[in-house]
Amino acid sequence: MSKIRIGIVGYGNIGRGVEQAVMAAPDMELAAVFTRHDPATIHIRDTSAAVLHVDQAADRRGDIDVMTLCMGSATELPVHGPLYAKSFNIVDSFDTHAKIPEYMAAVDAAAKENNTTAIISSGWDPGLFSIMRALSRAALPDGDDYTFYGRGVSQGHSDAIRKLDGVKNAVQYTVPIDSAVAAARSGARPQLTARQRMTRECFVVAKEGADRARIEREIKSMPHYFADYDTTVTFITEDEMAANHSTMPHGGLVLRSGNTGENRHIIEYSLALDSNPQFTGSVMVAYARAAYRMSREGNHGAKTVLDVPAVYLSEKDRATLIREIL
Amino acid sequence: MSKIRIGIVGYGNIGRGVEQAVMAAPDMELAAVFTRHDPATIHIRDTSAAVLHVDQAADRRGDIDVMTLCMGSATELPVHGPLYAKSFNIVDSFDTHAKIPEYMAAVDAAAKENNTTAIISSGWDPGLFSIMRALSRAALPDGDDYTFYGRGVSQGHSDAIRKLDGVKNAVQYTVPIDSAVAAARSGARPQLTARQRMTRECFVVAKEGADRARIEREIKSMPHYFADYDTTVTFITEDEMAANHSTMPHGGLVLRSGNTGENRHIIEYSLALDSNPQFTGSVMVAYARAAYRMSREGNHGAKTVLDVPAVYLSEKDRATLIREIL
Repeated sequence: MSKIRIGIVGYGNIGRGVEQAVMAAPDMELAAVFTRHDPATIHIRDTSAAVLHVDQAADRRGDIDVMTLCMGSATELPVHGPLYAKSFNIVDSFDTHAKIPEYMAAVDAAAKENNTTAIISSGWDPGLFSIMRALSRAALPDGDDYTFYGRGVSQGHSDAIRKLDGVKNAVQYTVPIDSAVAAARSGARPQLTARQRMTRECFVVAKEGADRARIEREIKSMPHYFADYDTTVTFITEDEMAANHSTMPHGGLVLRSGNTGENRHIIEYSLALDSNPQFTGSVMVAYARAAYRMSREGNHGAKTVLDVPAVYLSEKDRATLIREIL
Repeated sequence: MSKIRIGIVGYGNIGRGVEQAVMAAPDMELAAVFTRHDPATIHIRDTSAAVLHVDQAADRRGDIDVMTLCMGSATELPVHGPLYAKSFNIVDSFDTHAKIPEYMAAVDAAAKENNTTAIISSGWDPGLFSIMRALSRAALPDGDDYTFYGRGVSQGHSDAIRKLDGVKNAVQYTVPIDSAVAAARSGARPQLTARQRMTRECFVVAKEGADRARIEREIKSMPHYFADYDTTVTFITEDEMAANHSTMPHGGLVLRSGNTGENRHIIEYSLALDSNPQFTGSVMVAYARAAYRMSREGNHGAKTVLDVPAVYLSEKDRATLIREIL
C-alpha cells in the first residue's frame, strides 16, 4: 500500500514535532516542508523530503495527501487555513477557542467547494481535552467540569511578559493548585475560580538597568493574563534561563464530577508532557491519517476531533484494532 | 422534536441504571421494560412506561427506537444480541473481550440484513477505556499501556467465590497497588505482571460449620481468578456484609507511557464510580442516542465505541457542542 504523503507548512516547534511523528509512522512519508523563509536556510531532519517556499505549495497539489498547517492561530491560520483548504486536505491546531465557529465556517466553505477534508483544532486543548469533555458530559449529564493546566509553559503568557519594556527574556509556568484539584476530586462539586485553580510563576531576565519593581508590577496587574491569578515573579540571569527553562513541558487535567441519583462518579483525564510541541505534532499526525481516510470516503468539509471516530486514527485496520484494544 | 423511545430488556442492576439515565435525558423517553419474568412482579420507577414479557418485544417494533440489552455476556447476549438486532436498533455492554469479534460478526450480519444499527460493547471497559486506548496509542505510537482496575467489586470474582462449598455470600474487591501505579506514571515503562498491579480482597460469609481454612485455600488457589494475585480472605458476618459491602463501586485507570524522541509523556484516564451499574447504564444511554442517529443516517450494522464520533453522544446539536466544549 502506498504511504500517506504529508506536507508541513511552517517549520517551527510544532512543524518539527509533526516531522518527527511522520518519520516514526509506518504508513506515512514526509513529502515536503514549506516555509516563508529562504528554503536554503531551513535544514530538516528528514533528508528525503523537499524544502520549498510556500509560494510553491499550490504546484505540489498532486504530491501531498494531507497538509499540516503548523502556524499561529492569532493571525496566520485565519488567513491561510481557508486558503490551503482550497487545494489540500488539511490538519491544524487552531486554538483560539472563542473564534473556532467563525474559523470553522471559513474552512468548511473552502473545503466543501473544493472537495477537500479539513480537521481543525486538533492537538490536546482543543483536541483530546475536547473529546474528554464530550465523552464525560455524555456519560454524566448531571455534573460539573474542571480543567487545570500545567505544570507547564504557556507561550502566550511568556510572550506577554517579553513585550514589556525592560524585559530581555521570560518564561511563564502555569501551575495547578493541589488543594483545588483535591476539591474537584472530592465529588462535592465546588465552584472554583481561576485564582483558586492555578497560579502563575514567571521567570524573567531583565535588561541591564531596567526597573525590576516596575516590571513585576506591570506583570501582576496585566488584565486577563495575570491580574486574576496569584502570580510570582522571579528575576534570573540569562545563564539560568538557558540552563533551567529551555524545555517546553506542559499538561493538564480535565475532570468531571457527576452524579447518578445519589451516587457520585469522577472521570479524570490528565496529560503530563515533556514536550508540548512534540506531543501536539504527534496528535496532529494521527488526525492527518483520519483526514486522509475521510477524504478518500468523500467525507469533505471542515471537521473537528468530535467528528472523528477513534478507529480512523490508527494505522491498523478496524478489525485488528477492535480485536486488540476494544 | 419527538423523543427517542428507549426499550430495556432485563431489569437487573444495569437495566435500572439505564432507566434512571433515560428518565434524566431531556431527549428520551422510556417506552417499555421487557422481562423474562412475570411482568406483574416487576415494579419499575418510570410509571409511564409499560412492563412487558420478552415474548411481546417483537410486536413492539414500531414503538421503540433503540433497545438496550441489559443482560449477561456469558450466555444471554451471544443468543439474544443477534436476535434483537433483527428487529431493533440495539445497544449492549457485551464484555467478554476475547469473544467480541465473533459476537460482532453475528450481530453485524443480523443488523445489516434488517437495516438496523447495533452498538456493541459500550460501557467503560470495553467502552470508554477502549476509546482511551485507541486515542493514546494514536497520540503516542511509541509507548506502553497500563490498565489497573479498582478499587471496586468484581461480580465475576464474587460469583466464583459464592459457588464454593460452604460459602453463603461473598464480595471481592479488586485493588490497584499504589507502587505499581507510581511505577507506570514514572515514565520508565516498567513491565508489570498482574500480581504486581492488583491485589484481591475477599469478604466471605461462611455457612455454619463450614471449614474456613479449606474455603480460604480454595479461593487462593483458584486458577485465573485468584492464583495469579496476592489475595486476602476475611470472614465476616451476614450483618457486616449487609452494612459494609452492599454497594457496587468500581473504577480503574488506563495509562499510556510513551516517548517522542528523547521526551516522555504520560496520558492517564481514570474512573472512580460509586455505582458501576448506574454509570454503565448512563454510558449505554449515550450510545443509544448515537445508535438512533446513525440508524437515521442509514449507517447500519454492528458498531463499537471506536466507530462513533463523540458528537453523536450529546443531546446538543453539533454546532452548539463545538461552540461550548471544543
